Amino acid sequence: MRKWILPEYVEDILPAEALRIEMMRRRIIDWLLVHGYELVGPPLLEYVESLLSGSGGDTDLRMFKVVDQLSGRMMGLRADMTPQTARIDAHLLNRKGITRLCYAGSVLHALPSGLTRTREPLQIGAELYGHTGLESDLEVQRLMLQTLAIAGIGGIHLDLGHVAVFRGLVRGAGIPAELETELFGVLQAKDICGLKELCSGLGKNVDAHARQALLLLPELYGDDKILALARKSLPEYPEILCALDGLETVALQLKPMVDTLAFDLADLRGYHYHSGMVFAAYTANCPNAIALGGRYDEIGKAFGRARPATGFSMDLRELAGLVRSDLYPKGVLAPYAQGNRALEERIAQLRSEGQIVVVELPGHENGQGTFNCDRKLVLQDQGWTVIGI
Amino acid sequence: MRKWILPEYVEDILPAEALRIEMMRRRIIDWLLVHGYELVGPPLLEYVESLLSGSGGDTDLRMFKVVDQLSGRMMGLRADMTPQTARIDAHLLNRKGITRLCYAGSVLHALPSGLTRTREPLQIGAELYGHTGLESDLEVQRLMLQTLAIAGIGGIHLDLGHVAVFRGLVRGAGIPAELETELFGVLQAKDICGLKELCSGLGKNVDAHARQALLLLPELYGDDKILALARKSLPEYPEILCALDGLETVALQLKPMVDTLAFDLADLRGYHYHSGMVFAAYTANCPNAIALGGRYDEIGKAFGRARPATGFSMDLRELAGLVRSDLYPKGVLAPYAQGNRALEERIAQLRSEGQIVVVELPGHENGQGTFNCDRKLVLQDQGWTVIGI
Repeated sequence: MRKWILPEYVEDILPAEALRIEMMRRRIIDWLLVHGYELVGPPLLEYVESLLSGSGGDTDLRMFKVVDQLSGRMMGLRADMTPQTARIDAHLLNRKGITRLCYAGSVLHALPSGLTRTREPLQIGAELYGHTGLESDLEVQRLMLQTLAIAGIGGIHLDLGHVAVFRGLVRGAGIPAELETELFGVLQAKDICGLKELCSGLGKNVDAHARQALLLLPELYGDDKILALARKSLPEYPEILCALDGLETVALQLKPMVDTLAFDLADLRGYHYHSGMVFAAYTANCPNAIALGGRYDEIGKAFGRARPATGFSMDLRELAGLVRSDLYPKGVLAPYAQGNRALEERIAQLRSEGQIVVVELPGHENGQGTFNCDRKLVLQDQGWTVIGI
Repeated sequence: MRKWILPEYVEDILPAEALRIEMMRRRIIDWLLVHGYELVGPPLLEYVESLLSGSGGDTDLRMFKVVDQLSGRMMGLRADMTPQTARIDAHLLNRKGITRLCYAGSVLHALPSGLTRTREPLQIGAELYGHTGLESDLEVQRLMLQTLAIAGIGGIHLDLGHVAVFRGLVRGAGIPAELETELFGVLQAKDICGLKELCSGLGKNVDAHARQALLLLPELYGDDKILALARKSLPEYPEILCALDGLETVALQLKPMVDTLAFDLADLRGYHYHSGMVFAAYTANCPNAIALGGRYDEIGKAFGRARPATGFSMDLRELAGLVRSDLYPKGVLAPYAQGNRALEERIAQLRSEGQIVVVELPGHENGQGTFNCDRKLVLQDQGWTVIGI
């Protein structure tokens, strides 16, 4: 029935799930607020150019577009709130120091990002602007892991990567831009044959060491030993050495917070967008990363104000699905109260204590079927009393 | 700057306002939950036919539309969550008795509904399905007035109307359907000349009393005397008499909850959609109704299951704007804590009490400018202590 009436990958959220999402949303927002992250609410739609600023072409294809009847210009429905938050930091708040922002809202994807994904994720996240050091990477990564913990999700595996490894190889080896895009494509698709072919065609202008290193990248995935292997086998470009040092420092701090941690030096998920360390959290029973983030110092430029930036986001609907428990709080059934002052007061008192009280309407008495009530209000000698049904 | 970068009638919500909206949203949802209204989350987009079902043509023009790349069919972005909620009641929950549902989410309007309105209202509302009597109208109306009170909005004026008055006249007088649409148009536009012209053209087939009554409708706006005037001057069709009785009963109950109350027998705002009593709440400093609702027993039919229905909704952004107070809670500034166990614990403790603690990042010490802090953590003899800045 759901499928018949709604488009594919679009779903209604029914009461038990809606309540779970609502409570998780509140816990997470409260958590971010006490860490000094200020809540902002960017709009669901903006001019297309504004939404695409700095985000590379990835976003363009997955964005729904509509014509603005007021201006005739194209507007897009946001597919990601991070660039919008960067715009707010750069333009509206325009502060000199560090700005911490958080948000929670629906985003829309023209196509689902996977077979198990909705086209309407409920994105929640936090972003830190104005600081370049590892300390802000760490703050954001810790905050993401703590957020998963307060959402009730355990057994976390964390992947750490750094776009400077691939970028460093490309720059250091002097690989032309058009080839960089092709290399990026095969690496992202983990297409080893394609990678070999491209590398063998790189020619003699390119540093042989860098060529070897590019071929090795897809294998640089795993635990601590990978960092040692990378140090040994990658060219000693300063950009790469610095990235490896950063990864080592951060991993040391985060290890106590996760079950397992790995380095993925070929992770290019947000390459057009990210500029430094990137990270993704996984848990059992979920094929996708449940939380993602990284440094993206260059987005602000598109808005006329380059600002160091790092942040994370997650899909609340996916998180709520992982802690599935279809318990809806039970209510108290009350007779129709109109004009009965004592009964009205008792009902108001129960509700002020947070109890759900459902009033029977005339003609529908004994309507327990309508709501999950396990108690009822009856008049006894001592007044209106709650008893089991 | 805001205007330059965002489409007209589309705005960012900045921290102080976002926090005010968030807290108002929570208070209202909690209030609806304890009254037995179950939270649901219909999707932002659906097939156009589904969104238009039962809602008349009003919605069609103000809806943004996109092509579904998966099916090739047209999808619309919801402009109103009420028909979606009716669909959930009719199809998904499919309960026999009374169902109470509530929701909160963004809706999008292709054109703003007024000069002071956003194109992205944050609709919050409650709907009651399965009961036809006045008791459910009253429950929903009281709930709306109480909701406005807990949102901190006072000085409420309530308008009550009933679509059966116009409908009764049209049916009783045997006015043909095409003329009904024209009459509806001039009445809604309060176009008295147009109304006179149409009525004089009604011809002899139409009951003279009904014709007189149609001309009188725009004047039937005001306090209790209006009901008496209506009883005296409208034809005694059972449908109309029943509507007037209902209005009188409900008004008597609601008067103690509002500052002023009026009857508006020519209110046809939701005519294509509503089927019974309708109501709208106003307050000073706001030209628009701040909350609207009414009975709409016929929407369910479109979803294959006619269900009595009544409900209300309001725009959280507009409400939050009315209780404007740009206070953002002040924070506590803390030195960078990494590795300092005592300091980390003190910070965690303050945050668990709900205090905002902002940690300074290296290179950005004394960064009070970045966040509104009025206290700081310093190490004193007795440990880490909060002092004024």
